Amino acid sequence: MSEFALIERIRARAASDDRVLVGIGDDAAVLAPEPGRALVATTDSLVLDRHFRSDWPAADVGHLAAAVNLSDLAAMGARPRWALLALTLPTGDAVWVDGFLDGFLGLCTRFNTCLVGGNLSAGPLNIGVQLLGDVDPACVARRGRARIGDLLAVTGSLGDAAAALLGEDGAPADLLARLHRPVPRVEAGQAMAAMATAMIDVSDGLLADLGHLLGPGQGARIELGQLPASGSLVKVFADASQRWPLQLSGGNDYELLVSLQPSQWDAAHARCAALGVPLTVIGLVNSAGAIECRQPDGHRLELPRGGWDHFESR
Amino acid sequence: MSEFALIERIRARAASDDRVLVGIGDDAAVLAPEPGRALVATTDSLVLDRHFRSDWPAADVGHLAAAVNLSDLAAMGARPRWALLALTLPTGDAVWVDGFLDGFLGLCTRFNTCLVGGNLSAGPLNIGVQLLGDVDPACVARRGRARIGDLLAVTGSLGDAAAALLGEDGAPADLLARLHRPVPRVEAGQAMAAMATAMIDVSDGLLADLGHLLGPGQGARIELGQLPASGSLVKVFADASQRWPLQLSGGNDYELLVSLQPSQWDAAHARCAALGVPLTVIGLVNSAGAIECRQPDGHRLELPRGGWDHFESR
Repeated sequence: MSEFALIERIRARAASDDRVLVGIGDDAAVLAPEPGRALVATTDSLVLDRHFRSDWPAADVGHLAAAVNLSDLAAMGARPRWALLALTLPTGDAVWVDGFLDGFLGLCTRFNTCLVGGNLSAGPLNIGVQLLGDVDPACVARRGRARIGDLLAVTGSLGDAAAALLGEDGAPADLLARLHRPVPRVEAGQAMAAMATAMIDVSDGLLADLGHLLGPGQGARIELGQLPASGSLVKVFADASQRWPLQLSGGNDYELLVSLQPSQWDAAHARCAALGVPLTVIGLVNSAGAIECRQPDGHRLELPRGGWDHFESR
Repeated sequence: MSEFALIERIRARAASDDRVLVGIGDDAAVLAPEPGRALVATTDSLVLDRHFRSDWPAADVGHLAAAVNLSDLAAMGARPRWALLALTLPTGDAVWVDGFLDGFLGLCTRFNTCLVGGNLSAGPLNIGVQLLGDVDPACVARRGRARIGDLLAVTGSLGDAAAALLGEDGAPADLLARLHRPVPRVEAGQAMAAMATAMIDVSDGLLADLGHLLGPGQGARIELGQLPASGSLVKVFADASQRWPLQLSGGNDYELLVSLQPSQWDAAHARCAALGVPLTVIGLVNSAGAIECRQPDGHRLELPRGGWDHFESR
């Protein structure tokens, strides 16, 4: 059974109530401890050989564990507040834990997030992080709420982490840093939440995550020539047709993908610019029911199967 | 490095702020999204061959995963509200997940707790649960806050789960149920929180958890003849001296251990009785700096090393 089928199976069985503003299936849950307040909760696990390798520095693993969860909160427009850490470790290796905390707490502190609890168990290495944040309930940025005619825009650049994965240790340092030390777009998420019709972080790959951003029956046209690429990526892959698969399906970008009504573009762009975060229009939402990628010469690109599934990609 | 040394190492490095009412080191964190409100957050992981075995029914594993976390909230006096589920699974086995959910959601629903999100990953089986609850900040039941002269009392009975572990499949069904399907004392925790000076759930074993309940320099005297034992336990271990080690150090009881000023005893006992939960005085808090266990004949019992450490017990 696929990951998303399993999630749907779980979702169908989970009870809810009027204090659950957003339940299973978005980047994070949104909860209302009392009317007018919204609490945002997310959890993400890192597994050895799936999300990181045993030869990675522990500090990189810690950084990544914080980053993927902070990115989920960013994609809701939430302000991160508190973290819980559930570590399953083969041994009580204090040196590894210290290194892990260097990276984990370093990134948490950067975004004013306190580690408030957790759990330690012995077993195969597994890193579970839970983050709690808060948000104005009127400004929660959801998935699946894009509107026909919306612009699609993405922060930063796409494809660096995927290129680093391909190149392994031979990849340029700045590409490797995007893979090992992604910086979640926490401030940009909060800045854009009120003006975006929908928002998601790009973790599984642009096409897969775009599929979650769109509403039922919607489609999108992506202009491949507009996909933002870093200077390093362009240097390693000078041929754009080699870059596109990495940018469309590589994943691990931890950028934010938003849909915006055209009237909101100037404000969103200005807010991101004020934060030093590039925001680039890459396409628009339509009613085609499918995602079409157009090359600069106007031809369609035949799409690879988008995204990846934790259970079916192996 | 031992589990508690690792926790202390993490605690020493974790930042905090005035919205963190209780941070690392208690049963759960207590957070104040805004003044006057308290949010309680806990996480616990179950690892194959540590906390459950591969031949356990999936529903039992799901029940246990909910129970251990609900028990942590109970020990804070909190009302459980929301759950997140981070499952790391070797395969996308829908039958196992369905069985797991039978147990997990069954117990969550019993305590009005909604599953609101989570994460699925592929890898060695690991079950991470996070629970959120709320509590009146004035009624949070902490560890380490017992006072000299307090009565020590425990809900229900002790030692059944440890006896089931010893007896494996040959153990009586009601003892096995205590191991596989413990029912956390959620209502009793809320009922006693305002009157207990300190409270903890008995998961690692009475002696180990009592050690956490006591404040610095405090000690306790336990009357072994007063340790509550189920009828089944007495039947299997008719010799009390065989029961005591199970009751003192066996763990997995998921009962609540409280310290109470003697003036609060009647009220606490009555509240538990109204819920159908036995509450038994088993000793008292003193200034001896150590835990002494007295046999009915007045002799001291030489103590086994109490509790277990996730990293040093192997």
